[in-house]
Amino acid sequence: MANNAKIVKDFEAIVGAGNVMTQEVDLHAYSYDAAVLPSQTPSVAVRPTTEEQLAQVVRVCNEKGTPFAVRGAGTNLSGGTIPPKDGVVVLTGALNEILEINEEDLYAVCQPGVITAKFAAEVASRGLFYPPDPGSQAVSTLGGNVAENAGGLRGLKYGVTKDYLMGIDFFDLNGEMVTSGSRTVKCVTGYNLPGLMCSSEGTLGVFAKLIFKLVPPPRASQAMLAVYDDILNASRTVSAIIRNKIMPCTLEIMDNVTIRTVEGFRSAGLPTDAAALLLIEVDGHPAQVQDEAAMVQKICKEEGVRTIEMARDAAHKDRLWQARRDALPALANFRPTCILEDATVPRSQMSAMVDALRRIAKEYNISIGTFGHAGDGNLHPTITTDKRDKEEWKRVEAGIDAIFKEALSLGGTLSGEHGIGISKAKWMVDETSPATIEWCRGLKAALDPKGILNPGKMFWG
Amino acid sequence: MANNAKIVKDFEAIVGAGNVMTQEVDLHAYSYDAAVLPSQTPSVAVRPTTEEQLAQVVRVCNEKGTPFAVRGAGTNLSGGTIPPKDGVVVLTGALNEILEINEEDLYAVCQPGVITAKFAAEVASRGLFYPPDPGSQAVSTLGGNVAENAGGLRGLKYGVTKDYLMGIDFFDLNGEMVTSGSRTVKCVTGYNLPGLMCSSEGTLGVFAKLIFKLVPPPRASQAMLAVYDDILNASRTVSAIIRNKIMPCTLEIMDNVTIRTVEGFRSAGLPTDAAALLLIEVDGHPAQVQDEAAMVQKICKEEGVRTIEMARDAAHKDRLWQARRDALPALANFRPTCILEDATVPRSQMSAMVDALRRIAKEYNISIGTFGHAGDGNLHPTITTDKRDKEEWKRVEAGIDAIFKEALSLGGTLSGEHGIGISKAKWMVDETSPATIEWCRGLKAALDPKGILNPGKMFWG
Repeated sequence: MANNAKIVKDFEAIVGAGNVMTQEVDLHAYSYDAAVLPSQTPSVAVRPTTEEQLAQVVRVCNEKGTPFAVRGAGTNLSGGTIPPKDGVVVLTGALNEILEINEEDLYAVCQPGVITAKFAAEVASRGLFYPPDPGSQAVSTLGGNVAENAGGLRGLKYGVTKDYLMGIDFFDLNGEMVTSGSRTVKCVTGYNLPGLMCSSEGTLGVFAKLIFKLVPPPRASQAMLAVYDDILNASRTVSAIIRNKIMPCTLEIMDNVTIRTVEGFRSAGLPTDAAALLLIEVDGHPAQVQDEAAMVQKICKEEGVRTIEMARDAAHKDRLWQARRDALPALANFRPTCILEDATVPRSQMSAMVDALRRIAKEYNISIGTFGHAGDGNLHPTITTDKRDKEEWKRVEAGIDAIFKEALSLGGTLSGEHGIGISKAKWMVDETSPATIEWCRGLKAALDPKGILNPGKMFWG
Repeated sequence: MANNAKIVKDFEAIVGAGNVMTQEVDLHAYSYDAAVLPSQTPSVAVRPTTEEQLAQVVRVCNEKGTPFAVRGAGTNLSGGTIPPKDGVVVLTGALNEILEINEEDLYAVCQPGVITAKFAAEVASRGLFYPPDPGSQAVSTLGGNVAENAGGLRGLKYGVTKDYLMGIDFFDLNGEMVTSGSRTVKCVTGYNLPGLMCSSEGTLGVFAKLIFKLVPPPRASQAMLAVYDDILNASRTVSAIIRNKIMPCTLEIMDNVTIRTVEGFRSAGLPTDAAALLLIEVDGHPAQVQDEAAMVQKICKEEGVRTIEMARDAAHKDRLWQARRDALPALANFRPTCILEDATVPRSQMSAMVDALRRIAKEYNISIGTFGHAGDGNLHPTITTDKRDKEEWKRVEAGIDAIFKEALSLGGTLSGEHGIGISKAKWMVDETSPATIEWCRGLKAALDPKGILNPGKMFWG
């Protein structure tokens, strides 16, 4: 990159030398994210500590036509935060202030670098509730959550990040502030830019300030663990729960491969011979929780559950949930490479998808552990492999292709919550249409005429 | 319009002569909407009866560079459906099929011309619930609701149209299909175009098909009417209810001007000496409803309510609610011109806004009746006047200007649910920024390079 030295000097003048990184050891850390994709090393990483510095950094990149990407915690699972090669990485870690929690009007204003779990805990300490809980919440940032429209375990009842973003201020490519949405729960002043920014994968603007809706927390909850001898009975249970108009706050599934891997990772007394587990939690008014928990038990029994265990207290619940929290680390630990997919189907098609995943695992001779948000039809088929084994890797790639084809043929979508990024861009047209791709490219080109903001993502597959 | 005759022939070839209107008596009906603004008469109205015809109509307009606007029921309150002068009006009335109601996966697929209330009733007959209920729902269309991101009385607890639009297929300016969102509750495949289309006021694409989320209906509800001698006590009650973590499904206010006007319109036994009424409804699990209704009663008493009446049954509830439903017709009937505003403030600022409205009415010597969605801070200050009285009209215009200034200074927004359209475009920059206007103009220009799709709205004030 020819103007590397010059841009480093410019950045140093803006943020101070201590917040500009050019050494390989630093840059390597920002060259990849949580997706299994080739890394791309940037030439410089810059860490603005104020909103104004962020604007100036954007201006410098734009003036020089230097490609750049904004990075929160880099927990992205689709390559959305892999930076442009030799470009600039803008780190939001120092923009980590919760600026306001308004208890009367039920909203909060945050900088983009605030850690999700820290924010949720701060909100909870005020007696309020921020429901979105992506798996990476302990380290993920709110800015990243908005860019990806992050989901989590509570999507079925409480929705996802876009259901909570009331307003957003962001910088355009000239470093000018675009402001949208409001501190009011209703706002139709102009285009719904908070809506557009959610799942824009950092390609349309540089987030400066986020306004989130908060809600009152549920008064009570009841967690349950249901064990099945046949995974189809488990997925039929999921459909029956919804059909009975119960909306659990969590309705998760784990298949046998996942159960065994979790148990091997950290023994929790899981039944390794079970075909599937359902982790179910209902919440709300105490009387409603009691009624719904009883109905869920009844439904589980009708659908042929082996056993169902009710959490007696917080510690017991925590133990039941630990298995679910261990699912990804256990699978990731199992073999050198772990690919976590999130093809999603209408929930009535979950049995068909589960069946298809078994068929695909067999046909391509690959190992697929399946767990995920059953209530949303948002499964996480997780392939454990070793990328260095070229023959196996070819089968894995073909298997992933088959998974997406299956999800689409069942009326589903490529991605429930992980985004398109680099990894799924090539399938975009299969779910949408050539006109859709062109329309979105036109939109992007108008707002980023030089094509420098997180280029090569989503619509360039 | 030079190519009028040619375009009429083209349209006739597409939709048949019976679905093309060029007579003044027809065109006049489409020259205005529910906003108090000068009418603009189109040169032709065309009524496609299939999706394919709709695409062809768009193609013809685009090839000829003829400005056009899509119109549902024309209940828009900000001039968003006032067509381009001498342009084309595309009517969606014949695209009125509910294509699918999926009871297992809790979604519905509709054409844009489906009437909101008809859809809600059909959904209810299947034991499900579509919450958005704009005041005009008896005639408004779902396409119009999406274009405006329509709200209603249930916004506080259940959200607005954007919270239910899961997917949308729309035609770009070339008449090519852009498809987005999904039948799955989670979907992050590409930009969030369902989000962007909500409140785009028909300026970005021509809607073909809408996918809406449905939810289980509440099992029980309780409506109440609280009467106040001081409107500030009523607005303090609203804040106290939310502070106590109760989310009523409806929390409406009516001030004395509105009460008296409603009572004069159709006697319902309302206390005309009351300063304000609150109409409150809680819903959910029966035990929760009982608890919350008791808490609401207690809060009302603590905040100095005069009387509080609990609805005994459906008929009684209906009678209590009739007053609220009569508010707009009564005010509209009161004098020749009725301007219904929807400046919205954070709910904790509602007392301040109510105070300001009284001050503004006095200062400009205008009549303002205030009612609306108190729980959302979404008031409807309604000015009754006579536009032909030029002196009074000047005071009205100055008063409206003062209302918007006040709402913005209280951290609020120009429009909670009625949109910007023509009527509020000139204030856009006061709420946002010059860069915001430019950004949105850039977005619009990229997607509609000839500037023919519902031109002159939102960002051209």
